Amino acid sequence: MATVIQKTFGDISLDTDVKGDISSSDNSGLVMDGIDEDIIDPWTVVSKSATGVDYDKLIARFGSSKIDQNLIDRIEKVTGKPAHHLLKRGIFFSHRDMHEILNSYEKKKPFFLYTGRGPSSEALHLGHLIPFVFSKWLQEVFDVPLVIQLTDDEKFLWKNLTVEEARHLALENAKDIIACGFDVEKTFIFSDFEFIGMCPAFYQNMIRVQRGVTFNQVKGIFGFGESDCIGKISFPATQAAPSFSSSFPFIFGDKKDIPCLIPCAIDQDPYFRMTRDIAPKLGFRKPALIHSVFFPALQGAQTKMSASDPNSSVFLTDTPKQIKNKINKYAFSGGGATVEEHKEKGGNCDVDISYQYLRFFMEDSDRLDEIRKDYSSGELLTGYLKKELITILQGIIAEHQERRKTVTDEVVKQFMTPRKLKLNL
Amino acid sequence: MATVIQKTFGDISLDTDVKGDISSSDNSGLVMDGIDEDIIDPWTVVSKSATGVDYDKLIARFGSSKIDQNLIDRIEKVTGKPAHHLLKRGIFFSHRDMHEILNSYEKKKPFFLYTGRGPSSEALHLGHLIPFVFSKWLQEVFDVPLVIQLTDDEKFLWKNLTVEEARHLALENAKDIIACGFDVEKTFIFSDFEFIGMCPAFYQNMIRVQRGVTFNQVKGIFGFGESDCIGKISFPATQAAPSFSSSFPFIFGDKKDIPCLIPCAIDQDPYFRMTRDIAPKLGFRKPALIHSVFFPALQGAQTKMSASDPNSSVFLTDTPKQIKNKINKYAFSGGGATVEEHKEKGGNCDVDISYQYLRFFMEDSDRLDEIRKDYSSGELLTGYLKKELITILQGIIAEHQERRKTVTDEVVKQFMTPRKLKLNL
Repeated sequence: MATVIQKTFGDISLDTDVKGDISSSDNSGLVMDGIDEDIIDPWTVVSKSATGVDYDKLIARFGSSKIDQNLIDRIEKVTGKPAHHLLKRGIFFSHRDMHEILNSYEKKKPFFLYTGRGPSSEALHLGHLIPFVFSKWLQEVFDVPLVIQLTDDEKFLWKNLTVEEARHLALENAKDIIACGFDVEKTFIFSDFEFIGMCPAFYQNMIRVQRGVTFNQVKGIFGFGESDCIGKISFPATQAAPSFSSSFPFIFGDKKDIPCLIPCAIDQDPYFRMTRDIAPKLGFRKPALIHSVFFPALQGAQTKMSASDPNSSVFLTDTPKQIKNKINKYAFSGGGATVEEHKEKGGNCDVDISYQYLRFFMEDSDRLDEIRKDYSSGELLTGYLKKELITILQGIIAEHQERRKTVTDEVVKQFMTPRKLKLNL
Repeated sequence: MATVIQKTFGDISLDTDVKGDISSSDNSGLVMDGIDEDIIDPWTVVSKSATGVDYDKLIARFGSSKIDQNLIDRIEKVTGKPAHHLLKRGIFFSHRDMHEILNSYEKKKPFFLYTGRGPSSEALHLGHLIPFVFSKWLQEVFDVPLVIQLTDDEKFLWKNLTVEEARHLALENAKDIIACGFDVEKTFIFSDFEFIGMCPAFYQNMIRVQRGVTFNQVKGIFGFGESDCIGKISFPATQAAPSFSSSFPFIFGDKKDIPCLIPCAIDQDPYFRMTRDIAPKLGFRKPALIHSVFFPALQGAQTKMSASDPNSSVFLTDTPKQIKNKINKYAFSGGGATVEEHKEKGGNCDVDISYQYLRFFMEDSDRLDEIRKDYSSGELLTGYLKKELITILQGIIAEHQERRKTVTDEVVKQFMTPRKLKLNL
């Protein structure tokens, strides 16, 4: 029996009907049950086993590279800053060409960051924060510009939304993204429905990519079928275009070969495999990538997430009480069935959602190690982990809500206006 | 043996390799030899017989309506002006919903005109003038705004051009179009590569169309195949978008339901069949159409035209001497093999290219009737028709060249700047 994992970072499918998606397109003949390997693409994350996605196998299949201690050490050396806990803990676990980015950075050659979000819902949940938290850290330690694409056109194409609804969601999501604390002087946020009509260079790059990619190729990469609309079929070019500095002449001037680094969840990799394949044919640089794992649902990695079920996730709009109740009631426990059993056999951190969430959000690594040790030995009960998690999440979300209140329409406009950025290039 | 006709109005295939096009796509299984019916699509015009395209059959197959005397009379009545000779002589021969356009015009409800050109070459030839000559007449007698799309993105996708080359051709073609004498206060000319990056509303309508059309549909309508690039597959939405007044908010404000009339060659009809199919689903009005026949090559309707052969056509850049030489040397004659035979049997106006060209360009209908009579009876020789034609074309082209000289970059910029137009709505 295949299981579906909650997808979150740069999430493209918060409320996708996974079965529907698979049956409506030609996913290389894979079926939900009895599949041979995990299915990971921008719309579907299906694991063949209840223990979740096998990320090592995914690296081998996608042909990316594992982030090893050597790379983490090098990032610390080059930036002179300690690595982010999301990097040290293997949450960002895979990359493409990170060493090339560091090579040119060491030679004082600039790069830029590109990440994005498909605005499919008004309220973001915790997992949606991860790529932005990490991008903010990268922006700070490398002191580089960042572009953030809100693919409202994609959500319009895939969901039953009007253009106006999709644009509204993009603006609301922009507020949450800005509330993560990005530097307005170094960050450009854009919605496709607005920005593509403001930048001929971006559209020209979209069409350059569209000329170099066939239907057969997007069928192979994304599983598109003949009954898919032509908007879906050509959309991958829209997500590819921000990888090239020439798409943003107001930021980069005539510098058309500034390298790009894309932090994203591993499910977005197919877009950028395609982009890396076409880039040299267009005379452009291949973007580098740094990939994260998926963020688990409260009910555990084995459960199917559902946007219509607010209890499958903690949202950035939740009250302290809602957070407390959701964690206490729904966070899957890796502990024993009884206190006695727990004390005897210990808890299983690998499946305990409270522990897993602490890995994402507890900054103190020593404390996290201690918790792992004491929970595994049975000394700490699940209730203790939940309490720790609740306190941390209540703090993070309350602070986020405070910051979001200060994000006025005027601030959003500042971030979303095509303009020069402050570059230390 | 199938024959290929010179395509010209709103020409999308001046230098298309027709065989290549047909073999690379799935054209409903039709082959060049032994075809059952004419193939007419935006890239291919192949006739099953040496007498050329059977336009009556085409009307039946496409489901359009023949322009009859009743419609011509009505246009004259509504506008209070005599019909253009291109209309009276059946060169514009087919339509969709012209009566609806006239109905609302009679109720003082406005419409707008939309035509276009695929800029595949720097020099336009005579046939390219036809849709613009007719659009100018429509604009004048109805006093309505006109938008002209230059599909440089399409040419980039279909031809071996760079973006810069395609944009250059668009600007050069714009000069020839402007030289036709359009009113800058009522005419907006745009290149896709420039304008789509200047107008979010246009891009939004493109994506609306893209959501409503599947690969299967464009495969059926245009013969696209799985090895075609995703740019070609989604391009029909780009040609559809100007049919909707909401694509031009700077012209039409919030008036989203102003009817559109599209003068074009019949080969462009597939784009607008698709557009008319999708329009009601988007809450938009179906565009009306008025279709022309194709412009024949100098060597006759039976010959395959070639962009690499400057002698297959008279270009707007030709000198008086070149025009004289080309007509005298290459214009296919419908006359007898000898003067004696000609005087005895008469000439065949239906295949005589000089006569055919006079139908397009001689304004004096009485004179044309006389020529037809006297050539058919054998009284006039081919040489006389050639002489008449040479004089007329030398005049038209010299005047065009004079006007084109006055079209500065500044004038082009005026026409191509998104702006309010003078509307008598």
